Amino acid sequence: MKKVKIYITLKEGVLDPQGKAVQTSLNTLGFNEVQEARVGKYMELLVEDNADVEAKIEEMCSKLLANPVIEDYSYTIEEGILQ
Amino acid sequence: MKKVKIYITLKEGVLDPQGKAVQTSLNTLGFNEVQEARVGKYMELLVEDNADVEAKIEEMCSKLLANPVIEDYSYTIEEGILQ
Repeated sequence: MKKVKIYITLKEGVLDPQGKAVQTSLNTLGFNEVQEARVGKYMELLVEDNADVEAKIEEMCSKLLANPVIEDYSYTIEEGILQ
Repeated sequence: MKKVKIYITLKEGVLDPQGKAVQTSLNTLGFNEVQEARVGKYMELLVEDNADVEAKIEEMCSKLLANPVIEDYSYTIEEGILQ
């Protein structure tokens, strides 16, 4: 088993109203040192061992998990997870 | 400036219907090697340099960003981001 951690973020320049709301809320709560907030998605997948996990993950991200028009993604693969 | 990356995940044992939907969709698309998917949130904050950034981030997470009843959070702090 491999554990794959996927990080999906909005591309630079794409408006992020959810991030803006988080920033405003933090400022309202008194955390005035927060200058910017951007919100993305984080996913953990448990994937069977397979020769080409990386290619598969690329395909999953571009086909389903991220919207390549407005989002970037990155991932890390952890080997040898016992299940 | 410091860049803070925050990862919010559902606690072990908490039902994750969104993750289940992602897993089912991936399986339907032919990615049968995906055994489990869990979905969380990922945030990037740009924070002014400050002596106790870590304490502030802990407070932000527990007060606003995460729901400590059902969610866990972790974060990394990157120093010296130019703005």
